[in-house]
Amino acid sequence: IQVQYVKNPHLESMEEDILYHFNLGTKTHNLPAMFGDIKFVCVGGSANRMRAFAQFMHQELGQPGHVDDIRDICEETDRYSMFKVGPVLSVSHGMGAPSISIMLHELIKLLYHSRCRDVILFRIGTSGGIGLAPGTVVITDKAVDSFFRPQFEQVVLGKVIVRSTELDEGLSKELLQCSTELPDIPTVIANTMCTHDFYEGQGRLDGALCSFSTEEKLEYLRKAHEAGVRNIEMESTVFAAMCRMCNLKAAVICVTLLNRFEGDQISTHHDVLVEYQQRPQGLVAHFIKKRLGLMA
Amino acid sequence: IQVQYVKNPHLESMEEDILYHFNLGTKTHNLPAMFGDIKFVCVGGSANRMRAFAQFMHQELGQPGHVDDIRDICEETDRYSMFKVGPVLSVSHGMGAPSISIMLHELIKLLYHSRCRDVILFRIGTSGGIGLAPGTVVITDKAVDSFFRPQFEQVVLGKVIVRSTELDEGLSKELLQCSTELPDIPTVIANTMCTHDFYEGQGRLDGALCSFSTEEKLEYLRKAHEAGVRNIEMESTVFAAMCRMCNLKAAVICVTLLNRFEGDQISTHHDVLVEYQQRPQGLVAHFIKKRLGLMA
Repeated sequence: IQVQYVKNPHLESMEEDILYHFNLGTKTHNLPAMFGDIKFVCVGGSANRMRAFAQFMHQELGQPGHVDDIRDICEETDRYSMFKVGPVLSVSHGMGAPSISIMLHELIKLLYHSRCRDVILFRIGTSGGIGLAPGTVVITDKAVDSFFRPQFEQVVLGKVIVRSTELDEGLSKELLQCSTELPDIPTVIANTMCTHDFYEGQGRLDGALCSFSTEEKLEYLRKAHEAGVRNIEMESTVFAAMCRMCNLKAAVICVTLLNRFEGDQISTHHDVLVEYQQRPQGLVAHFIKKRLGLMA
Repeated sequence: IQVQYVKNPHLESMEEDILYHFNLGTKTHNLPAMFGDIKFVCVGGSANRMRAFAQFMHQELGQPGHVDDIRDICEETDRYSMFKVGPVLSVSHGMGAPSISIMLHELIKLLYHSRCRDVILFRIGTSGGIGLAPGTVVITDKAVDSFFRPQFEQVVLGKVIVRSTELDEGLSKELLQCSTELPDIPTVIANTMCTHDFYEGQGRLDGALCSFSTEEKLEYLRKAHEAGVRNIEMESTVFAAMCRMCNLKAAVICVTLLNRFEGDQISTHHDVLVEYQQRPQGLVAHFIKKRLGLMA
């Protein structure tokens, strides 16, 4: 039985499908020829980081040609960036659940139109840590909302629909195993909290608006810690929910840039932050190479 | 009495404030010297569009130098783009409420640190129209949520706080007056619905997921129309709520790219879309020139 990635009976009757935010379409592009061999999709917030990941994978997979020649497939639009390196697609998604959800709708349709099979999705990102040393990589066990519930609320035609955010447990464990095979990538499996705001929503004291005390902030973070949350970001719940609905195996791998018990501002030196951000990339690259049988 | 744009008692005791997503800070940059003369801030989703707006304002205000020399103040980061032309700041905010809220927190702190006074904020964007000819500009009366309520729900430390999304009525009327002074900018004042998803959340039939019928979609859009909604976008409620909380006069001006009663896909020719997107820019430029006394 063929697994279908989309869940939309209307798509079959559409003569043309324009993936507006990618500037791609079924009539203007031969999607199966362009994307049919994709097996791994990595998504992350920053366009520059996803370009760097594509260049890194190009080297890791020993692809022909020069890394500077990897072009942004979506260069005609500035909404998202997309890079392809062999069976690996690297796509940016901006910040927040709405931004990644637009991208995922169009990405999942792209995989469907391209007739891709057995695709694994990874979100590689940055996050605030709770009680972890900065630089620790968190592989998400459960993606939870601001109330520590493993769910995502989607409004459909003015009605709230609750979706599970369960991720693939086997995939998480396989990624954790990969981390033990690499030097200097401290990694844990833990819950990830997804908020819809970076400042008030994550209990930061340094936004334009703040109505709570340091003690109230710390109490909230302690409660999150008790619920098994070890990092906070802004996309994991909708990512998990949509991948699950669409039969896509998926994992979330984020590095922590700071320990929120100790502060709110990201004041770590730029070079250190860059090295931290390479850790999820290194982990996923290792996983992909193992799956492709490219490890010595 | 001096109006304070921030509402956060913690800010005064901070030795340094790093505006992380702008790559600016109070110790690394002389913010009052860089931004102290700002009187108008225009924000919009796309970095390219906000660059184009800055170049347009450069011409309209008769600024010295070449438009190609207007540099992206946030070029070291790819999260947002920012351009300054005289008293006008043009900033991109990505897509969705979480993305614009991060930018607004840091923008409002930037205005505070720069000791700006009497600033007016405009969101200029694109939207889906309801019962309007494509290309119509909608100046937002009330920004409403998916349930047609003029409010924004902000989660703070795990509790839901409801904020009003009321905008400045005088400013909207002044903008409508400007539209009558310009050729070819059909403009209305109406309610704007802000959703957190582009596909299911706006009743589109062409996402990766869709569980409703064409008739159910149209019924939802008809209800929105009855509630005075004439366009749908993804940032207006949090924009209105934060500006209101922070004593900033603000307006939302979006052009409609299609009539959602007639379809979901944005298939209009690229050149026509570009011309549509210039309409809110032209309207705001006219307003700014009038305020600066630059009209003949």
